[in-house]
Amino acid sequence: MSTSGSDAARQLHVFPVLGIGEVEAGDDVAGLIHAALDRPVMRGDIFVITSKIVSKAEGRVFAGADREQAIDAEAMRTIASRQNPGGSVTRIVQNRFGLVSAAAGVDTSNSPGGRLLLLPEDPDRSARDIAATLRTIYRVDVGVVISDTLGRPWREGQTDCAIGAGGVRVLEDLRGDLDTEGTEMAVTVPCVGDEIAAAGDLVKRKTTRVPIAVLRGRGDLVGPLDLPGASSIVRPPDRDMFSLGAREAYEEGFAAGLAAADPAADPPPSDPRRSS
Amino acid sequence: MSTSGSDAARQLHVFPVLGIGEVEAGDDVAGLIHAALDRPVMRGDIFVITSKIVSKAEGRVFAGADREQAIDAEAMRTIASRQNPGGSVTRIVQNRFGLVSAAAGVDTSNSPGGRLLLLPEDPDRSARDIAATLRTIYRVDVGVVISDTLGRPWREGQTDCAIGAGGVRVLEDLRGDLDTEGTEMAVTVPCVGDEIAAAGDLVKRKTTRVPIAVLRGRGDLVGPLDLPGASSIVRPPDRDMFSLGAREAYEEGFAAGLAAADPAADPPPSDPRRSS
Repeated sequence: MSTSGSDAARQLHVFPVLGIGEVEAGDDVAGLIHAALDRPVMRGDIFVITSKIVSKAEGRVFAGADREQAIDAEAMRTIASRQNPGGSVTRIVQNRFGLVSAAAGVDTSNSPGGRLLLLPEDPDRSARDIAATLRTIYRVDVGVVISDTLGRPWREGQTDCAIGAGGVRVLEDLRGDLDTEGTEMAVTVPCVGDEIAAAGDLVKRKTTRVPIAVLRGRGDLVGPLDLPGASSIVRPPDRDMFSLGAREAYEEGFAAGLAAADPAADPPPSDPRRSS
Repeated sequence: MSTSGSDAARQLHVFPVLGIGEVEAGDDVAGLIHAALDRPVMRGDIFVITSKIVSKAEGRVFAGADREQAIDAEAMRTIASRQNPGGSVTRIVQNRFGLVSAAAGVDTSNSPGGRLLLLPEDPDRSARDIAATLRTIYRVDVGVVISDTLGRPWREGQTDCAIGAGGVRVLEDLRGDLDTEGTEMAVTVPCVGDEIAAAGDLVKRKTTRVPIAVLRGRGDLVGPLDLPGASSIVRPPDRDMFSLGAREAYEEGFAAGLAAADPAADPPPSDPRRSS
């Protein structure tokens, strides 16, 4: 299924959508694309849209000026936190739609007046809505990926990842397919959604006013609007080996060990999130 | 520094190098590219090369048939492990050049006769060697990224990342640059090396015999051969909040808590890897 199309045609073209100005609450992102894009859209094109402009269009501004309060409001739980040399605190949290990120995506950069921008309420819904409107406008099937910039454990720097997706496959399940030696690809599930977001970032870049790129050449990933969204990328708790930071888990274990040594004390609470 | 070049020219083109056959120990990867590639190479082109063929060219075959033994030989330490429902064990380990991955990259897929392939000995050195030879052949400055497929905490599926780099910037430091609102981009360091590897994977794919792609359009990232390699992406221990899996850290803490409750016992060993 992944080898469809001739090899010669198998190339990728990623180009920016230029001329998108400042986005305001109430703006129609698909309409902004239509007004700005000066070249034809083709079946299978995938629009990679920076979450920040979706947040702006949806008016996702925190009603307050305190960044920590905004993070508290967005976070379902804290996975790890660390005090930085300068005194600030880095908090890795999981938000209501399962995304694990630093500071729950609360952002002041590229935001007028330093207002606190939150992530879109439901990025998969946003992506499907934009994809549906684009399909109506252009009369061809296109996909939408909403991207955000995420850090990672063990690796420095950030990469753009898919936090919303509409009409595009985000996980390409190769399990059961055979590799070139005829061996089954047992565990390979490329997260093409994240790879598409990453490719888009190489064109959009960070410090310029280009919040949207078009990726052409993987139309095989574009399908019905009810394909699973980026929420399907969220790892379920029973497969999560890093549900807590090392220090946080150690401290929880230490307290439990102390309590276990004193049978008269109350038993320590167990943590159902920890994988076995 | 990141806004050089006209917007109109700012697009990305990624195409496969077709016709690379089975790679044997002793093969010269740059020579294979030169023999296979049927279009001109341009200044700033970045070659994304699947680590597997570099391993094959370098004869990195484990002298044995036991996969666990091969992982033991490659791993410097185990970060987390988990028994899967089928009885197999997933081990997240850190290898000698700092890469954190499942099974230390030991691989049997796409390997003739199911031999155990190890990662290249020093992927940055391999990438620089290949880049140097390509620069001699084509008389233009090109970059090389050696990619491997890595899983991630909290997110399902895998993405291709840079495990080796030669003559190409892998971390684009935007700290100090101003965003479109004039706010300093305080913590943004896009890992363009990993994003380049991801874009390459969208063209190479997994089940086809296309181990190399060329990425054109980010020549601004190509520079001297002595630029920091992919080893610079490895996060140093003092910035690592996930130096152990949640279960492993909890168990270590539990043992320490038990021991601390009994002052007569030996003090528990402290873990210098854990971030404060």
